[in-house]
Amino acid sequence: MTIDNYWKQRATVRTFLDKEVPESLLVDLLDKASHAPTTGNMQLYSVVVTRDADRKQLLSPAHFGQPSVTSASVVLTFCADYNRFVKWCEQCNAVPGYNNFQSFITAVLDTALFAQQFNTVAEMAGLGCCYLGTTTYNAPQIAEILKLPKMVVPVTTLAVGYPANSAETPGVGRLPVSGLIHNETYVDYTPESINDIYKEKEDRDDSRRFVKENGKQTLAQVFTDVRYTKEACEHFSQIYRDFIISQGF
Amino acid sequence: MTIDNYWKQRATVRTFLDKEVPESLLVDLLDKASHAPTTGNMQLYSVVVTRDADRKQLLSPAHFGQPSVTSASVVLTFCADYNRFVKWCEQCNAVPGYNNFQSFITAVLDTALFAQQFNTVAEMAGLGCCYLGTTTYNAPQIAEILKLPKMVVPVTTLAVGYPANSAETPGVGRLPVSGLIHNETYVDYTPESINDIYKEKEDRDDSRRFVKENGKQTLAQVFTDVRYTKEACEHFSQIYRDFIISQGF
Repeated sequence: MTIDNYWKQRATVRTFLDKEVPESLLVDLLDKASHAPTTGNMQLYSVVVTRDADRKQLLSPAHFGQPSVTSASVVLTFCADYNRFVKWCEQCNAVPGYNNFQSFITAVLDTALFAQQFNTVAEMAGLGCCYLGTTTYNAPQIAEILKLPKMVVPVTTLAVGYPANSAETPGVGRLPVSGLIHNETYVDYTPESINDIYKEKEDRDDSRRFVKENGKQTLAQVFTDVRYTKEACEHFSQIYRDFIISQGF
Repeated sequence: MTIDNYWKQRATVRTFLDKEVPESLLVDLLDKASHAPTTGNMQLYSVVVTRDADRKQLLSPAHFGQPSVTSASVVLTFCADYNRFVKWCEQCNAVPGYNNFQSFITAVLDTALFAQQFNTVAEMAGLGCCYLGTTTYNAPQIAEILKLPKMVVPVTTLAVGYPANSAETPGVGRLPVSGLIHNETYVDYTPESINDIYKEKEDRDDSRRFVKENGKQTLAQVFTDVRYTKEACEHFSQIYRDFIISQGF
């Protein structure tokens, strides 16, 4: 795969070879990723590296048993981290005021940019990566397992390893880019434009299979009734909000 | 610059040539970026493209007059967007339950990954980019100027154009990567490790200049007393939190 066609061909990898990612490679990739843009060059993040099989087993339920957690060579938990920065401020006679929502969001963005830069440089180096969105659901358990102190909150996780399937599989389709772009001002969607934007997605074989397997009438119902229900979103909203506050934001 | 040394050499670009980014290039780069990982392939984001000089002038105060806003060829406001997804659900007889904090955070992460993938592919194509962290400070004004409907919240902005200084300037230094990595569990920082991690940053010429120009004793005080004060963080926390709620989350 050349760099130019990497972008649209890339895909999430969920199954991995039983082969370690060398420590030197991992550190080199994290080093490169740390040059991603960051607010005021503050680098408000840390990454916790899990290689130990027992600890992966501990993390597994927090990620609802997704098999990539235990089969990956390394699990990287990317955390919004003001702990390091605040400690630095305090020992430099500076009084930090970062125990608030705006600071949390700033650190979340820093963390996401770092994680995504890692994802890209790792994929380009031939590794496979799988984001685990469950990180914000079960943050308290993850924080306990990884011994995260105050001012540190898990934001996202990447399971990383050598792809089990070396055949190049192009990524799942995306919405037509025109459906994501608004020129000058946001032009709200009409029923017709929504149909146009989602038609290809709905018509894909995997989408039709999802609908059938879940006994639903429409693909959207798979999202609202099965994958991302109102009840789960509200439940995990409360947990994450409470956890962020308890961590000092 | 080869791809392999792009990662550590990249740098934010704040001054631009008076040269338009062609529309076809912009759309191609956004298309590539849209293949970044996204939660459940939901793509919970939109981008509003500002080329109109008058509208850049309107946006400028919301970004505290940072000159990159008016000098960039295009200003891209990346927004967390559940509006499109919810409209799709509703016309597919699916009942969405995404008016909550967890859904907002999910969309923020999707948006950040998309923006960062754009940043990388754009920089690799020879464009310069500058993130504007002010986006989460003055989100209500930005939303009004860009006519954002409910369930759409600005998350970050990139000013994009051809770099005014074509000389390759390596990026500002970062903390030693070992200071960002925790193996297996988070090992909290000691005063000595904080000193080691921040020493190079404090000793840089630009850091010493910041301290002097701002009449401070330490670099950390430039952050706490000038750049990111407690008062500002708390003020903008309230505004952003209220705005997110008023937008329907």
